[in-house]
Amino acid sequence: MQKAKKDQRPDARLPKGFQDTGPADARALARMLGTIREVYESYGFEPLETSAIEYTDALGKFLPDQDRPNAGVFSFQDEDEQWLSLRYDLTAPLARFVAENYDQLPKPYRRYATGPVWRNEKPGPGRFRQFTQFDADTVGSESVAADAEICMLAADTMERLGIKRGDYVIKVNNRKVLDGVMEAIGLAGAEHATGRLTVLRAIDKLDRLGIEGVRALLGKGRKDESGDFTPGAGLGEAQIAKVIGYVSVEAASSGRETVARLREVLDDTAIGREGLDELDEIASLADASGYAADRIRIDPSVVRGLEYYTGPVFEAELTFKVTGDDGQPVRFGSVGGGGRYDDLVARFTGQRVPATGFSMGVSRLLSALKYLNRGATTAGTGPVVVLVMDRKDLPRYQRLAQRLRQGGIVAEMYLGTSGMKAQMKYADRRGAPCVVIQGGDEIAKGEVQIKDLIEGTKAAETIKDAKEWREGRPAQFSVAEDQLVSAVKGVLERHSVT
Amino acid sequence: MQKAKKDQRPDARLPKGFQDTGPADARALARMLGTIREVYESYGFEPLETSAIEYTDALGKFLPDQDRPNAGVFSFQDEDEQWLSLRYDLTAPLARFVAENYDQLPKPYRRYATGPVWRNEKPGPGRFRQFTQFDADTVGSESVAADAEICMLAADTMERLGIKRGDYVIKVNNRKVLDGVMEAIGLAGAEHATGRLTVLRAIDKLDRLGIEGVRALLGKGRKDESGDFTPGAGLGEAQIAKVIGYVSVEAASSGRETVARLREVLDDTAIGREGLDELDEIASLADASGYAADRIRIDPSVVRGLEYYTGPVFEAELTFKVTGDDGQPVRFGSVGGGGRYDDLVARFTGQRVPATGFSMGVSRLLSALKYLNRGATTAGTGPVVVLVMDRKDLPRYQRLAQRLRQGGIVAEMYLGTSGMKAQMKYADRRGAPCVVIQGGDEIAKGEVQIKDLIEGTKAAETIKDAKEWREGRPAQFSVAEDQLVSAVKGVLERHSVT
Repeated sequence: MQKAKKDQRPDARLPKGFQDTGPADARALARMLGTIREVYESYGFEPLETSAIEYTDALGKFLPDQDRPNAGVFSFQDEDEQWLSLRYDLTAPLARFVAENYDQLPKPYRRYATGPVWRNEKPGPGRFRQFTQFDADTVGSESVAADAEICMLAADTMERLGIKRGDYVIKVNNRKVLDGVMEAIGLAGAEHATGRLTVLRAIDKLDRLGIEGVRALLGKGRKDESGDFTPGAGLGEAQIAKVIGYVSVEAASSGRETVARLREVLDDTAIGREGLDELDEIASLADASGYAADRIRIDPSVVRGLEYYTGPVFEAELTFKVTGDDGQPVRFGSVGGGGRYDDLVARFTGQRVPATGFSMGVSRLLSALKYLNRGATTAGTGPVVVLVMDRKDLPRYQRLAQRLRQGGIVAEMYLGTSGMKAQMKYADRRGAPCVVIQGGDEIAKGEVQIKDLIEGTKAAETIKDAKEWREGRPAQFSVAEDQLVSAVKGVLERHSVT
Repeated sequence: MQKAKKDQRPDARLPKGFQDTGPADARALARMLGTIREVYESYGFEPLETSAIEYTDALGKFLPDQDRPNAGVFSFQDEDEQWLSLRYDLTAPLARFVAENYDQLPKPYRRYATGPVWRNEKPGPGRFRQFTQFDADTVGSESVAADAEICMLAADTMERLGIKRGDYVIKVNNRKVLDGVMEAIGLAGAEHATGRLTVLRAIDKLDRLGIEGVRALLGKGRKDESGDFTPGAGLGEAQIAKVIGYVSVEAASSGRETVARLREVLDDTAIGREGLDELDEIASLADASGYAADRIRIDPSVVRGLEYYTGPVFEAELTFKVTGDDGQPVRFGSVGGGGRYDDLVARFTGQRVPATGFSMGVSRLLSALKYLNRGATTAGTGPVVVLVMDRKDLPRYQRLAQRLRQGGIVAEMYLGTSGMKAQMKYADRRGAPCVVIQGGDEIAKGEVQIKDLIEGTKAAETIKDAKEWREGRPAQFSVAEDQLVSAVKGVLERHSVT
């Protein structure tokens, strides 16, 4: 055992990029995850929990010619010198699980998963090295009905979390459509990979920079307000016109109509047509189930990262305005996204298994819900506190607390050794709606006193006179001991605390 | 990106000592944790979530004269060469948190926490390197009322999880009482540390070996059935008689009466008397709140590990019998425990902060619940599956599934490309209570067919004749499309599936 000599004492601190979550956020998070879970279950998605630690090579973080795992993951060697890593997302463990258990799984296999993931990266403001993801994936279905279903799932989730229709939209595009645009402007083929990347990055900025900003980034480049210059893709006039024509297509009130408009500007490549046919099917599935374009919207500007997506891509966006860094109102923005990726397990088995999925940005979504509920009061949502007037009566106070709990009320007995004043301060700090007091007088009369702290706070704001206070004794009343539960429930109901 | 060439493909496997949790266990676990959470919240315990990664020295896994962290933890170096570790329990992070935030916390501070912990140890049968704990601790209260409360909390939790009164017991002892026994037999003082350990280990085995087994271990030693010999503590007759007199005290129907019986054999040391006084107070608090000795029982044989406990210790034991390794019925045994430890943060601050806590063995408890519910059927608890008869009607089938979900029924549309037979097999595999079928005929009539798979299974067991089957079409019926939800609910209710 380490001696607690001053110079040997460790500092009590967390490593940078990690955080503690206190009661309010932990409760809000548990509630939110529970709701998402319910929606996902209602669609027939099954939970899967995998361990935090996987073999580094199974996570795909080992290049064949490397001795050490790639950067970005937390890694350590097992006793037999094999490298282990903490998972950096929930998709890589899913791939390992599906490859390992393929024959036993129902096909298609719908699974959801939630839990922490870790990134060994430089932490920054709002960028943590441990954070929570919530994923849903459908494995083994080629059908874009699986993609449409995931979009409906995302829309239902938003509404069940209390985000009103109109305050969110699930935007859908298709990488095949974007491939069609690239081919139409002569950027198909491996030799144009860098050029494509620059063009996709420009398209991705439509929301933020508008049409003229994208036009500049497609051409010579763009200088922003701070004077910083971003070099452009260097496209010619005709190429730029083609891309701008594509991203300028506005969403119609029906998804299928939006697809029809896109066909007018993009009917010149096979891959583009295939992508539009898929979008058309998604739109008709969404429309048929009552998810018109105000909820699931075909949007040509969605790029969704530059990674491994091979078909439909989705983005869940919150459209209500908040105040941005510059004081101007901006849309809250993306809280999740996903898409189709058709090589989930090929890395392990060589076999192509199509999959489509959606990953929720849990902390972004939680921030959004906190913002939407910012008006709600949390006063009085703590436990009812039973004060301790005399230590010899502890069994009596314990019994009062127990009786409240058996009545469905969150309650605790004060466990410290301080006097009345400190106990009242403690109750305030705990957010107690009321305290229960039973001194010798009350015991003799078979009564308890209930002090309503919410009412008391209000009264304190209006009553100025100490005499008036003493005489009125606002918010404090006595009831027979066997009326305790109903009297406390009365207080909670009066203040709508549940 | 790694090429999927055969010889470079990684194996899809988990490292030893880690496991995946499939849908049935994941759901049971989530339900169980949710129930525990509710009980803990009702007692005024607040959730706290800390990160999986801490500085190694903050976890107490660094000895001052060591360059590397102790064995038993997964550790890795940060970019600035500081050692980080995965937490191995939830108490060490609590200590770090309390030391770091002492002034901001309510005092006493009740917190609960749940989540995975990691041990870098050799895995074995039932011994994993990642497992879940669920802890409740009260920090900053000297009062044994805090200990009594934790015992009541544990008892309430058992009952809320569906473990009947009589099938569990919360056993309570006090390390001070055990210290009194040691002092009485002349084993006080640092020079007798090893001897005390051997005696405590012997006492700890009372449940398994009985009085005579303990007597042998206190004396010369004990040979078990396999012939293995365990050396004893080598006590003299008088010492053995004292210890045996102590552990032989049987629990009375009231905890206070049990304490009175203990006083008769152990009134000879100050520390022993102090311990008995504390047990008496716990017993009277428990009795007053209706937790008589059938739920919270004073038990002199509880030792609860050999670690840092300084006062009351508790153990939650399930008392119903299961079949042991040797085919004989044995008690299910311990599912959690804890006690008072009075140096939570002294390691960081030098300041003594008393604390008491209880840690639930989540996977043991889950096994127990599975055992108790082993008769319950899970047939038909999967989603209702809407079959796909014709791909052109996908929007229609999607809408049917959506309508079921909106009616509160877990439902999915089949997303594969296989025919009717494979779809029925899929529905079986998913545990579907029924499938919904709508072919061209039904569409023309505005109807849907519902095939009750639970009834169908029963019928298949009795009907032997193909003709009888065809004519009877058991468990399959048609309803108007707008009656879909109520008809499916009828099937679910008939089989009590909710």
